[in-house]
Amino acid sequence: MIQSPLSIVNSRIQSNLSVLDRGLAYGDGVFETMHVNRGDITLWQYHYERMAKGLARLHIALPLEKLCEHLQATMTAIGDVVGDGAGTLKLMVTRGEGQRGYAPSGHEEPSLVSVFTPLSDIFAQANKRYQENGVEVHCCTEYLPINESLAGIKTLNQLPYVLASYERQGLSAQEGLLFTQDGLLIEATARNIFLVKNNEVFTPRLNQCGVEGIMRRVVMEIITQETTLTIKEIALNKKSLVMADEVFLSNSLSQLWPVTRCENQLWPCGEITQKIQQSVRGFLSHASTLSFSYFLSMTQQP
Amino acid sequence: MIQSPLSIVNSRIQSNLSVLDRGLAYGDGVFETMHVNRGDITLWQYHYERMAKGLARLHIALPLEKLCEHLQATMTAIGDVVGDGAGTLKLMVTRGEGQRGYAPSGHEEPSLVSVFTPLSDIFAQANKRYQENGVEVHCCTEYLPINESLAGIKTLNQLPYVLASYERQGLSAQEGLLFTQDGLLIEATARNIFLVKNNEVFTPRLNQCGVEGIMRRVVMEIITQETTLTIKEIALNKKSLVMADEVFLSNSLSQLWPVTRCENQLWPCGEITQKIQQSVRGFLSHASTLSFSYFLSMTQQP
Repeated sequence: MIQSPLSIVNSRIQSNLSVLDRGLAYGDGVFETMHVNRGDITLWQYHYERMAKGLARLHIALPLEKLCEHLQATMTAIGDVVGDGAGTLKLMVTRGEGQRGYAPSGHEEPSLVSVFTPLSDIFAQANKRYQENGVEVHCCTEYLPINESLAGIKTLNQLPYVLASYERQGLSAQEGLLFTQDGLLIEATARNIFLVKNNEVFTPRLNQCGVEGIMRRVVMEIITQETTLTIKEIALNKKSLVMADEVFLSNSLSQLWPVTRCENQLWPCGEITQKIQQSVRGFLSHASTLSFSYFLSMTQQP
Repeated sequence: MIQSPLSIVNSRIQSNLSVLDRGLAYGDGVFETMHVNRGDITLWQYHYERMAKGLARLHIALPLEKLCEHLQATMTAIGDVVGDGAGTLKLMVTRGEGQRGYAPSGHEEPSLVSVFTPLSDIFAQANKRYQENGVEVHCCTEYLPINESLAGIKTLNQLPYVLASYERQGLSAQEGLLFTQDGLLIEATARNIFLVKNNEVFTPRLNQCGVEGIMRRVVMEIITQETTLTIKEIALNKKSLVMADEVFLSNSLSQLWPVTRCENQLWPCGEITQKIQQSVRGFLSHASTLSFSYFLSMTQQP
């Protein structure tokens, strides 16, 4: 059942990690899931900035040199396997091995783990279909806990998303919408959400929970810089959703999916959504200064 | 710095786990930390019941036979290293290896990981001192997120406890008290809390967050069955704490610690606390029907 992905641990090709690692014990770390193509990491600069924010929140110190060395080893190993081929790279950074007890000693050495999965045709074809025809979503019963310390970042504590995704079993929906216990709309299980209403675009504020997606950032930048639309981060709920003219989801791997159905509510693959989809493609084809190779060239300058 | 503990993975002596394990990726699993002595696991029946509750909440199916086989292998390996010596056994059960994505496929094979650390004299001596003289606690700034799906159980998503424990750096306190964002007192970072007031004992309700500790259960049973005191699970806050006559913390490894100080508030190592400490020792010396060996003998009966 399981594809055999390529894994690199602390710069070496290796498929396992110590059971004493605090990443396993407590989910004490962060991760990024990134698009790899032609030997480079797309939007690395943005992934790096979110990861750095997450590491700072967890008080994990990761030397830049160690990160670059690990990613260079990762990209070399990927090149040996798929050449210029595309795929998904998951990078996990944990606090490293630790003794018993929640409190970090402060002397841990962070662990870096890369897992690369080549892009499958099935995934690519399904994604193209969802981008063009839209997807159905359902509202999850599982809610997102409020936690300002972890809001916005992407840690290894992901059980709320696991349990929410579990609810999709047997449903026709491709994604599930997540709310707080108080009914605030926050995101989808692996995507951010945008609502369009009267030429304004709205997306939930993520100061209490939720993940600040990389594609969410791209969409917000595009709307601000390339369109006459306005984008607002505000508090949204189910009523806002029902009243929206268009709804779409964003993710750095699958880009934008128009939402065409949620329960009894229907929406078109709207014009504004399609326009932003097109802008995202344009943005990505000119984003070489956000790539890993560019980052590396800037980092290594004397 | 790091002691070299003994580790067993899926019934075999092994110190690492696949990086594809969902325990690492999402904290998708549960754990128990247990006292081992004379080749047996103390209070196993209670640990098992909490673990089973946690696995059910996460929809992880673990065959009893697989669990028993792994624990038998664990106890054999421990016996080879420390004989009848005491120590701490951490048992982690994860959903197992998975493909990309939060949603479980339903075909995962759970991973079982044991980590045994022999009891150190330093730990035992410090613990005796804390049991006799009490400890100082502080109030954590980090709050516990509300999540009814995970309340009471002990999952691998422990970042709130890690961040709360981090606050203790540089303080004289031995433990930190955890509250909800709304100011409800819930527990300490690795212990449950009890307040004594006018011959009544109170402990926070844990229906929204917190861990239902094994020693908490023992204390509640002892109070109900062996004393004329009453025990009540209710909503408590900082005011309840300040007004308490006695305060103590419970943990299955360190048993009961009287709290003698929290910020400017002082308490004695009170009589009721001492009486319950004594009852706990009595309970533990007669708890052989709650041990792993007893569990195993009952499980394996025809």
